[in-house]
Amino acid sequence: MQSFIENETTYEVIPFTWPKGYKADGVYVGLRKNPETKDMGWLYSKVPAQAAGTYTTNQFQAAPTKLTKQTINHEHLLQAIVMNTANANSVTGQQGMVDALEMQSLAADKLGLENNLVGVASTGIIGEPLPMDLIKKGVDKLELLDNDYVTEAILTTDKHTKTISIQIDIDGKVVTITGFCKGSGMIHPKMATMLGFVVTDAKIADGALQEMLSQQVDATFNQITVDGDTSTNDMVVTMANGLAENEPIANDDSVNAQKFSTAYNAVLSQLAQDIAADGEGSTKLVEVNVEHAATHADAQKVAKAIVGSNLVKAAIFGEDANWGRIIAAIGQTSAQVDIDHTSVWLNDLPLVIDSHSADFDEVEMKASLADKKITILVDLNVGNEAGQAWGCDLTYNYVRINATYRS
Amino acid sequence: MQSFIENETTYEVIPFTWPKGYKADGVYVGLRKNPETKDMGWLYSKVPAQAAGTYTTNQFQAAPTKLTKQTINHEHLLQAIVMNTANANSVTGQQGMVDALEMQSLAADKLGLENNLVGVASTGIIGEPLPMDLIKKGVDKLELLDNDYVTEAILTTDKHTKTISIQIDIDGKVVTITGFCKGSGMIHPKMATMLGFVVTDAKIADGALQEMLSQQVDATFNQITVDGDTSTNDMVVTMANGLAENEPIANDDSVNAQKFSTAYNAVLSQLAQDIAADGEGSTKLVEVNVEHAATHADAQKVAKAIVGSNLVKAAIFGEDANWGRIIAAIGQTSAQVDIDHTSVWLNDLPLVIDSHSADFDEVEMKASLADKKITILVDLNVGNEAGQAWGCDLTYNYVRINATYRS
Repeated sequence: MQSFIENETTYEVIPFTWPKGYKADGVYVGLRKNPETKDMGWLYSKVPAQAAGTYTTNQFQAAPTKLTKQTINHEHLLQAIVMNTANANSVTGQQGMVDALEMQSLAADKLGLENNLVGVASTGIIGEPLPMDLIKKGVDKLELLDNDYVTEAILTTDKHTKTISIQIDIDGKVVTITGFCKGSGMIHPKMATMLGFVVTDAKIADGALQEMLSQQVDATFNQITVDGDTSTNDMVVTMANGLAENEPIANDDSVNAQKFSTAYNAVLSQLAQDIAADGEGSTKLVEVNVEHAATHADAQKVAKAIVGSNLVKAAIFGEDANWGRIIAAIGQTSAQVDIDHTSVWLNDLPLVIDSHSADFDEVEMKASLADKKITILVDLNVGNEAGQAWGCDLTYNYVRINATYRS
Repeated sequence: MQSFIENETTYEVIPFTWPKGYKADGVYVGLRKNPETKDMGWLYSKVPAQAAGTYTTNQFQAAPTKLTKQTINHEHLLQAIVMNTANANSVTGQQGMVDALEMQSLAADKLGLENNLVGVASTGIIGEPLPMDLIKKGVDKLELLDNDYVTEAILTTDKHTKTISIQIDIDGKVVTITGFCKGSGMIHPKMATMLGFVVTDAKIADGALQEMLSQQVDATFNQITVDGDTSTNDMVVTMANGLAENEPIANDDSVNAQKFSTAYNAVLSQLAQDIAADGEGSTKLVEVNVEHAATHADAQKVAKAIVGSNLVKAAIFGEDANWGRIIAAIGQTSAQVDIDHTSVWLNDLPLVIDSHSADFDEVEMKASLADKKITILVDLNVGNEAGQAWGCDLTYNYVRINATYRS
């Protein structure tokens, strides 16, 4: 267990646990090839939970993403989400929506819930009809348990599950926030990301959950990129069932709101970084911090341009301090720059000072580039705003995985 | 020799030749590692030629690019261009401009020209000072000859030179247009591209050359991408010395203007495709044609999004007809789409019809994907505009080349 203090908030990162009132399960039904994995799962709250979501901006939005958005927008309540991997039910025409609705119905019936309290999430290959016989078999097998199998049941080419549980104290009540997600490829979220779920037992004031999610997604999931491709299925869904029995938390400046918001942000930020670190084929997590930008938007744009550059990514894979590519990536953006006074550090070693090579020690720099996490700091020297983004290196394995994805 | 008829214009593609009045040369001075190559060169016209250019929009525009732009803008005349590879003289601070000016001066002095008739072009690594001793040695060695060595003296990771010569007949006068360029990596031109040079002996009316170049660059060089990275040194420079002694050609609807413009476009288009086909590590040229778009800009945007998608590029390398990635790339753009009636063909085989899998024969499709040129046709079904873009596949070699570029 680790304690963190941020913005004067203390929070504990604890081993994976479901917040009060949540049950879940995951099973294998044959959607994936490997029977040692899980490929269907669900998540259930004993009581209807406040719900909020952000969704892909890809115009070919998949049926389950569309349906979950409609379902959440109905009354901003959810009590369960049923999920599958290996088939995204995307670009599947009218049949896709029929199948998503049936998947929702199957889960709702088994749980004795109204359809409009059940979200649906699918990920995997695009353009093939959802095998409904397997989906039906999956819902039949799913139970209401305490295991974390659902966090595995949404993975595709991900190397491992991505989960985090955090506890905070709100007026003497223990509040737990648990998040999990899948990432890997086609990761370049715009206003949303790949599948991400954050559930809490906190009691949240009406409307505040969507506000917090939307604000925080912009600075976390929307600031990661693996390959510049935005999926048709991206969504982040969050549920808050109130069973921690704290006083309702608003999205305001109160101490409790700040405390919750800090912990909530830590969950989103950690999941986003996990996705970047486990980008398809990646060997390194790349974090870019931009300082002294004219605007926050400029800082975010520059940070994302650097983590998004294939050339920067390939150089980092090769552990080559090719800073000209970082400078070129900065210059490609519309952000205000000071072309004579831009500076760049790599893992705290000066790389470029005032737009000139910092005359670094190649051996020391090369050794630093062997790290699993590479941090790039950019000083734009034009203002006081900062921004951040995360990505990964571009490797032979990225090419291998994506040259043969359907085989 | 091959004859082409396009827009009722006949033009001949002829073996490489310099148009009337042009001389050139290329030498090896030690900028590149391999002494069997050329690394400096120049191009000279016996008389001052009308000149036009387009330049990178990267904010860190390199000194030689800046200087050549200033030089051309002075009187829209050039008589020579001196070039080097292996060092881009980019992000080299004030010294960079001092060095570019000296390189210009050295060439002008040797040729007995005013400085402001001499352009300068550099390409190669960013951030290292230009080795002026070698540049001086190069200018000393260069002569006024008829060889094509200069077309080799601008290559970096390019596998081969990219050249084309076309002849047309304008009112009984033979007009020659010769172009050459370098491409390979950091290719994602915005308003310009990597180094490209197009010289002709045509006589062009005042102002018409820049108009034609700017219009045609948008539909050719600006529609290619290798890796989404825009270089600091991109430029296309064109010279027309009038020695063919035709009546001056305006940029209008006259027969001669159409004839010249068609041939000129064939030069630019061929060079742009050569760059895409020889993208770093590439094994295939990818051409995307978009039809029935709402606007030309939409069509261009969709075409470029598809050739720019890492996932599409990796699938093409793997010869995998993963059409979901093409659909996802289309949906990522802001172009107007009909999400239920989008169709895609690959090398004339139907892949997606009305947003559903075309139920294609996987064996036949796989065989077609073995071709060296992959043509993707997209029907957006929303209007009457068309667009085009070119790119290449994403391969292990792209990663290898860019993981080790500086070594």
